Amino acid sequence: MSTFHIPYQSLKEFTKSIFLEIGCNHSDAEKATLVLLSADLRGIDSHGVARLSGYVRLWDAKRVNPNPVMKIIHETPSTAVVDGDQGLGLVVAPFAMQVAIEKARNVGTGWVSVQNSNHFGIAAVHSMMAVNEDMIGIAMTNASALVAPTFSTERLLGTNPICVSIPAGVQPPFVADLATTTAANGKLEILQRNGGVAPLGWIQNKNGQPTTDPFELKKGGALLPLGGDREHGSHKGYALGAVVDIFSAVLSGANYGPWVPPFPPYIPMPENQPGKGIGHFFGAMRIDAFRPAEDFKKHMDAWIKRFREAKTADGYSNVLIPGDPEREMEQERLQAGIPLMPAVVDDLKSIAVRFDLSHPFNA
Amino acid sequence: MSTFHIPYQSLKEFTKSIFLEIGCNHSDAEKATLVLLSADLRGIDSHGVARLSGYVRLWDAKRVNPNPVMKIIHETPSTAVVDGDQGLGLVVAPFAMQVAIEKARNVGTGWVSVQNSNHFGIAAVHSMMAVNEDMIGIAMTNASALVAPTFSTERLLGTNPICVSIPAGVQPPFVADLATTTAANGKLEILQRNGGVAPLGWIQNKNGQPTTDPFELKKGGALLPLGGDREHGSHKGYALGAVVDIFSAVLSGANYGPWVPPFPPYIPMPENQPGKGIGHFFGAMRIDAFRPAEDFKKHMDAWIKRFREAKTADGYSNVLIPGDPEREMEQERLQAGIPLMPAVVDDLKSIAVRFDLSHPFNA
Repeated sequence: MSTFHIPYQSLKEFTKSIFLEIGCNHSDAEKATLVLLSADLRGIDSHGVARLSGYVRLWDAKRVNPNPVMKIIHETPSTAVVDGDQGLGLVVAPFAMQVAIEKARNVGTGWVSVQNSNHFGIAAVHSMMAVNEDMIGIAMTNASALVAPTFSTERLLGTNPICVSIPAGVQPPFVADLATTTAANGKLEILQRNGGVAPLGWIQNKNGQPTTDPFELKKGGALLPLGGDREHGSHKGYALGAVVDIFSAVLSGANYGPWVPPFPPYIPMPENQPGKGIGHFFGAMRIDAFRPAEDFKKHMDAWIKRFREAKTADGYSNVLIPGDPEREMEQERLQAGIPLMPAVVDDLKSIAVRFDLSHPFNA
Repeated sequence: MSTFHIPYQSLKEFTKSIFLEIGCNHSDAEKATLVLLSADLRGIDSHGVARLSGYVRLWDAKRVNPNPVMKIIHETPSTAVVDGDQGLGLVVAPFAMQVAIEKARNVGTGWVSVQNSNHFGIAAVHSMMAVNEDMIGIAMTNASALVAPTFSTERLLGTNPICVSIPAGVQPPFVADLATTTAANGKLEILQRNGGVAPLGWIQNKNGQPTTDPFELKKGGALLPLGGDREHGSHKGYALGAVVDIFSAVLSGANYGPWVPPFPPYIPMPENQPGKGIGHFFGAMRIDAFRPAEDFKKHMDAWIKRFREAKTADGYSNVLIPGDPEREMEQERLQAGIPLMPAVVDDLKSIAVRFDLSHPFNA
């Protein structure tokens, strides 16, 4: 299958031009672009420009406000709730994370729950904002329901990711970014495209039985919580996904559980929604709020070194530190360009035609 | 197999008398007893009186200080590091959690990392302290290394549990308490005792190959992170266990990774330890630091109700809310007494003999 490689800079200019077309100001268009493309750079292809047309469709459906007036609607010295005013999550999330960072600067830590937002891209890019400030960053979000709790046949939770980013000294930061499911939805989409078979433990069919057919997801099946089944700890993945949902939405006043707005606007909005938009949750903890930053970094380096040098099982060359694969991918793609599937390129071209914009996809 | 049922009150008096014998003052002996027995009440039998003789052995080995002078050694308005002065984790943890709660009262949230402590029992009992204050409680701890990171043959992490307790209104609280492994070590101990076979995905042998033989754990094998293998997301369980280790020990100055002191004193202490004792991490977030408490509780009730009423797969009568099974067990055992295995009873009797104490195990 032929794949296009687009230079990062070209993709960035094109993406920004789209955000400008839907009415974002320059600063927000720039911010949204950097957040969206961080997914493509880090190899999380499902969350990058492949979703750009989805954001445009949300704007068409008047579910995204390109000029949100984001504001703090409740706060204490270490907490805040932010109303995202229906803005792009790509813009609301950095705003809220910055509030968390400012609070951490003042009182050691900051914790911000967000209502009335939309899909925020990848969690890592937001939580990593804290690392540059010598803080630990935490980011999570709820998402529309695709996941069945243990023992259930109903989809009640999103893939609800948690990301924790931790600064080190000479070592690169530790960045753990994980959906609270066995497999992220993006992996199932790839199997659906390629006609592949899913490992047992990723999905169930509409009756709650294990299945390997990725298309069962479109026939009333569900993704499974991390663990896969009860015997392998799926109740733990369910509990973690539930915590993300509650921190993101019950604390903030966003929608939770099965009421979270779906990303594709052609799926009807759930009825009797209990809150506003999608919810996120962010945290920032100054490392020197616990011990001198240099001490922390020295021990974090020692931690990373010990794990990186661990003995490996046959067939594996080294033990990875969370964040390693994505950082290596980013270096590679900054050099070699970002590979895009033909279907994604066609999608981006059609947005360019619609807005009468030049585009970098003529190769 | 015959099992003794001991009334809670009798077991409590007996346990307290042991803590008094090793030199705890009345208040600490009472606290340690309540924490230890909360595990027996909640059905986490591996963490209750079955470990009492282990604590006594730690005291024999001079690794537990029965009269710790616990103190805050670093703080900001929302954070603290507590030095547990080698006390029982059963006593150090409630002290540290109380510090987190006080900070939350003042500035919305409180976050406390602990060094120089010992095994703290079950995480749930500590995090639930916050619920009574209309706060969300978080508790985690590192533990001696039993778990191999994904791709490794070395044991570098403990079972490193995370507990999140969330208050509700008319509904009982949400209490998610989970080891970041597929299966808690207690389950393996049961299989070892009964000669059972472990499901694939719980453990690996010393070469890093999957095995179902629970005795491989005693021959250089390891527990597996939640997920079990890479294909089912074990890198996520590894990342979560790593976060617990870093928050508990790299933030506080405790030992981390393979250097965490082992619980059984006959296992030699790791060399070149980088910190002091075992580490814990606690958090408390006032719910009214985000929105009015009544609003939060109303929506938390709605969340719980929706999940509890979810459609079930064939063979299951209802979807559980985290904390349901343990709460039901506690009600049952407060009535019927606490079932103890004969080996545990013999163990407790021998402590009674050693200290020349009366005991309730003559039935």
